[in-house]
Amino acid sequence: MIHFDCDYLHGAHPKIMERLAQATLEPHSGYGFDPYCEKAAALIREAVGNHFADIHFLVGGTQTNATLIGAVLHGAEAVLTAESGHINVHEAGAIEATGHKVITLPSKDGKLSADVIEKYLTDFYKDETWIHMSIPKLVYISFPTEYGTIYSLKELEAIAAVCKRYSLKLYVDGARLAYGLAAKGNDVTLKDLGRLCDAFYIGGTKVGTLFGEAVVLKSRSIIPNFFTYVKRMGALLAKGWLNGLQFETMFTDGLYMECGRLGVDWAMKLREVFKQAGYEPIVDSPTNQQFFTLPNTLINKLQKEATFEFWGPRGEESSTVRFVTSWATTEQDIEGLRALLK
Amino acid sequence: MIHFDCDYLHGAHPKIMERLAQATLEPHSGYGFDPYCEKAAALIREAVGNHFADIHFLVGGTQTNATLIGAVLHGAEAVLTAESGHINVHEAGAIEATGHKVITLPSKDGKLSADVIEKYLTDFYKDETWIHMSIPKLVYISFPTEYGTIYSLKELEAIAAVCKRYSLKLYVDGARLAYGLAAKGNDVTLKDLGRLCDAFYIGGTKVGTLFGEAVVLKSRSIIPNFFTYVKRMGALLAKGWLNGLQFETMFTDGLYMECGRLGVDWAMKLREVFKQAGYEPIVDSPTNQQFFTLPNTLINKLQKEATFEFWGPRGEESSTVRFVTSWATTEQDIEGLRALLK
Amino acid sequence: MIHFDCDYLHGAHPKIMERLAQATLEPHSGYGFDPYCEKAAALIREAVGNHFADIHFLVGGTQTNATLIGAVLHGAEAVLTAESGHINVHEAGAIEATGHKVITLPSKDGKLSADVIEKYLTDFYKDETWIHMSIPKLVYISFPTEYGTIYSLKELEAIAAVCKRYSLKLYVDGARLAYGLAAKGNDVTLKDLGRLCDAFYIGGTKVGTLFGEAVVLKSRSIIPNFFTYVKRMGALLAKGWLNGLQFETMFTDGLYMECGRLGVDWAMKLREVFKQAGYEPIVDSPTNQQFFTLPNTLINKLQKEATFEFWGPRGEESSTVRFVTSWATTEQDIEGLRALLK
Amino acid sequence: MIHFDCDYLHGAHPKIMERLAQATLEPHSGYGFDPYCEKAAALIREAVGNHFADIHFLVGGTQTNATLIGAVLHGAEAVLTAESGHINVHEAGAIEATGHKVITLPSKDGKLSADVIEKYLTDFYKDETWIHMSIPKLVYISFPTEYGTIYSLKELEAIAAVCKRYSLKLYVDGARLAYGLAAKGNDVTLKDLGRLCDAFYIGGTKVGTLFGEAVVLKSRSIIPNFFTYVKRMGALLAKGWLNGLQFETMFTDGLYMECGRLGVDWAMKLREVFKQAGYEPIVDSPTNQQFFTLPNTLINKLQKEATFEFWGPRGEESSTVRFVTSWATTEQDIEGLRALLK
Repeated sequence: MIHFDCDYLHGAHPKIMERLAQATLEPHSGYGFDPYCEKAAALIREAVGNHFADIHFLVGGTQTNATLIGAVLHGAEAVLTAESGHINVHEAGAIEATGHKVITLPSKDGKLSADVIEKYLTDFYKDETWIHMSIPKLVYISFPTEYGTIYSLKELEAIAAVCKRYSLKLYVDGARLAYGLAAKGNDVTLKDLGRLCDAFYIGGTKVGTLFGEAVVLKSRSIIPNFFTYVKRMGALLAKGWLNGLQFETMFTDGLYMECGRLGVDWAMKLREVFKQAGYEPIVDSPTNQQFFTLPNTLINKLQKEATFEFWGPRGEESSTVRFVTSWATTEQDIEGLRALLK
Repeated sequence: MIHFDCDYLHGAHPKIMERLAQATLEPHSGYGFDPYCEKAAALIREAVGNHFADIHFLVGGTQTNATLIGAVLHGAEAVLTAESGHINVHEAGAIEATGHKVITLPSKDGKLSADVIEKYLTDFYKDETWIHMSIPKLVYISFPTEYGTIYSLKELEAIAAVCKRYSLKLYVDGARLAYGLAAKGNDVTLKDLGRLCDAFYIGGTKVGTLFGEAVVLKSRSIIPNFFTYVKRMGALLAKGWLNGLQFETMFTDGLYMECGRLGVDWAMKLREVFKQAGYEPIVDSPTNQQFFTLPNTLINKLQKEATFEFWGPRGEESSTVRFVTSWATTEQDIEGLRALLK
Repeated sequence: MIHFDCDYLHGAHPKIMERLAQATLEPHSGYGFDPYCEKAAALIREAVGNHFADIHFLVGGTQTNATLIGAVLHGAEAVLTAESGHINVHEAGAIEATGHKVITLPSKDGKLSADVIEKYLTDFYKDETWIHMSIPKLVYISFPTEYGTIYSLKELEAIAAVCKRYSLKLYVDGARLAYGLAAKGNDVTLKDLGRLCDAFYIGGTKVGTLFGEAVVLKSRSIIPNFFTYVKRMGALLAKGWLNGLQFETMFTDGLYMECGRLGVDWAMKLREVFKQAGYEPIVDSPTNQQFFTLPNTLINKLQKEATFEFWGPRGEESSTVRFVTSWATTEQDIEGLRALLK
Repeated sequence: MIHFDCDYLHGAHPKIMERLAQATLEPHSGYGFDPYCEKAAALIREAVGNHFADIHFLVGGTQTNATLIGAVLHGAEAVLTAESGHINVHEAGAIEATGHKVITLPSKDGKLSADVIEKYLTDFYKDETWIHMSIPKLVYISFPTEYGTIYSLKELEAIAAVCKRYSLKLYVDGARLAYGLAAKGNDVTLKDLGRLCDAFYIGGTKVGTLFGEAVVLKSRSIIPNFFTYVKRMGALLAKGWLNGLQFETMFTDGLYMECGRLGVDWAMKLREVFKQAGYEPIVDSPTNQQFFTLPNTLINKLQKEATFEFWGPRGEESSTVRFVTSWATTEQDIEGLRALLK
């Protein structure tokens, strides 16, 4: 069986497992007050180019989104997202569970535009009736998006400018951040994110760690007492050093970016394999998620030897499917797929 | 100034004020444990044809929606609504504040259809991924809708049947219920609502009372301990007898239906006045809300002597506006409007 | 039957009913944007001596407490209260429903002391473990307390000073405020509350209105967008002018203080009646709630002709009971009680 | 430095690390739908003697408590706990964040008694006023408690009986369960817990795993759709197989009980060391937490070479401290302590 259904199938990168094996029998302080976390935070502050950045390590993506958004928003405030945003669809109402409305905006291939956001805000504030509605105070975007697409620096800057103009905060979900940063044509850097976002997270689970997401807050004042809020959300890992050790490893010798590059390279090869078999991707994704509309007969055949996901409902004759690569994809996986497509 | 901006401009029907003046200097038990509430509940049980119905009196509409929906839904459950549903737009996130997602479905003139609901549910349960999503367990519709339209008995029965088939509860927001029941062509009765809905409310605020909405639960088992839940939501009126007295009055000698008929009659006259001036309503609403697209020049002129609401943003040349009548509208209001339109 | 079980048995003061009868058939703008509310707010600003005070009108006490506390607290923050505080016991978890912990402190006759609060805060911050606990950010006290006692100005100033020192806000529940202000020996004024509290409310329900509580925020910055938060809590009255009219009346010609004085005078007479019958009050309450420990035989006899509440469980031989007077108590009530006690 | 400050200082048991190193480079299905989880669940069902038990794996203790309690309670319901209960003190309001009140009862050495619970419930339901209060529907106890003490089977059965009589559910926090089960004198088995509790969790973090707690629900009907609720709480681990692998290992060849025994044995040796130095434990704890009141001079000396926690505030002359052992404590640790105490 070849696996292309998601990018969190494997455990951690061997470099992490190696260090973990050594560290496991030594005592470590709890809750992230340990040298690994300290070092990892310092490396991340360096990488995002902001020495005032407040770094926190959480366990998973939905948890990070709910904890962050729930802590940023107060009272009757709401978050804006693309209709396809992960927080709107696949998080079982985790944001609403913190008491806040998720407002959806039209999007293209998973991307929100500054114009769409601005139009919403202009309409919202056009007269006095807004005081009866949830007040938008945060924009959520993902980089890359749920469709594998990425924002250009110019697009990101435009969104950040709209946010600033209307007093909204900007938050980027970076569950697959490395695959976006490593994409061909990408002109956004970690330092750009550090500069433009009030908050974002650097995803570990899908890019080489056992688990773990590193939250980057522009400064401590973005969310005072965030540590206690994390605890209240049940998101505080007792053995926080596990996160520290993993992120220290990822941010040493460029391992995080290396994992990103690997995933993207395999994706481009997979794409080529499909193209050669006559199937063009239906979204122009430069990252590790690739989407194709395939005849159901082919899908049925592939399913016997490969795993992948349906994207939307099964059609009459053909259906859209998603193939995902990762840092752990192998030559064998790709060649196996090539053979299946023949 | 003539007022057509909403149906809660006036205080209460004179019959209520009269009884209130008498009752105010006598002592009454608190929290709804008084003879007025007992009598009002009995009259409502009679009117809805269900002697097991559990009746509760709350103060306002948003409060009632949030209290009811928050009490019916558990854990990761969600409510389905038309995009234009009041709970989705004009309640400042009151439902999400109870921790539950509001899922919007496409609608026509404010109405959901059984087909649209069923399609959503079929898609939702089509494969195993639903376990990562908010689980739909309640359908919210309004009667009449925010566009003044009403459901036929056949439509309501179809929706109730879909709900039953997929184990969802059905809840009807009756903020303007009397205006719907009194509409020409309406074939839905209070007894139908009592039979088809798990819960609905009979709106008082917009139909003749100072305030107050009467919640009708099909049985006590729909929401155990609802009284305590109402208290927890801050929705329990200390002087509950004020609600009892008002609803007892409304359900004596047909006053509630009479108020409904008055509001609808004035609306039909208003509609005629517009038609004669050359403006057709843009929604075929048989109730007390009427929508027209008028030239901005006319709107500007009207605004000097009448109040009404914009429905959506102001257009370049013309805009859509809403005119609302009520039990308290007068001949003078209608004739004043006729004069203005000349 | 004579009624001493609570102070919200009657409707509104005749002056209110009179104005209401006039106003009910005129149209008024919704949601508190009307001349009555404007006038009432101006009168209250005047009375509390703070022209920047932000005034909001809500419907009931539990609602006001939950709305206010939920809006002031963020994230993992908590409110401190006496164990006997209304928010801890008789609000069905309304505060916790907003996601915040209610932390109880030891109290005497319903009163918290600055020392007790300071000790709690000193202990709380004594080492680093506080970051795992709910962070106290608000002190809740009631004036008068649930035991009828009142704070001296010196005590209030000491509490306000501790709050300031540790960055907590101070909130006073004034459900029975007039009865406290009118108490013999009281040296606290509305202006003192306006000066010392970040927020408090002036109770109407128990002091002469049909319903309604006036929230006084020291400034708009205490809770930005409080109007929208009120809406989200379902606490916004559509016909807000009902609140405005009532509070305008109460703050015209000293009616609010007059109602307070009436309730206190009747309480002092009731106390005298008990003393003459040989029963000393068990709490030295100068306000409209009086507590006595009576033999069960007497209680049984009284219950046949008077209503009052047990305070705690029934004892073997004797039990503690509460008698409450109000602005609507009559000479006949007191004399009836005197006769019963003979 | 010798470490006795807590039992989650080390990583995982070597047997776990070994298997993890093998599994890390193989693909596994996400979210707990993998053979490890299936096997672990089967082993746990076997161990608790209930083949209908519903098993879920979460990451940490506070998370598990909040997720479980939030899912069990509805509406205005509350949980009862000892004042010293972990959910009341050290979880930053995580339970209240789910909207439910934590009601504290008096306790002895961390233990609740059936009598205390019954008295509370009898008082609660003594008259009709309970409908204004949070309704107790769950009892939370910890085994062992925060003071290291354990319940006897008879005590547990009595508590379970009270719960049944008053329609409350019983939930046991087993963060340190193995240390309780392995305690000398303990007569409670996993099968007893499976029989008496509606829900409990088997703690991994403190007993040999990197992280992870195994929730045992008596049946699926205790919490319908718990998987989705876990997701909504952000508590669902993407690589759920990490939990499965760890718990499968712990429940193979008696490793979980073996870890428990190790921790307890070291604790008894530590206790002996203190006794020989003249210090009696102040709580009769048969588990891995031991409490002593020591002179501050000795504490100051010890702190230079050992870590341990203060239990309450530092006293004038002496203070109470907690020493904790675990499966990873060594002979060297104990002997080092003995040397320090000389």
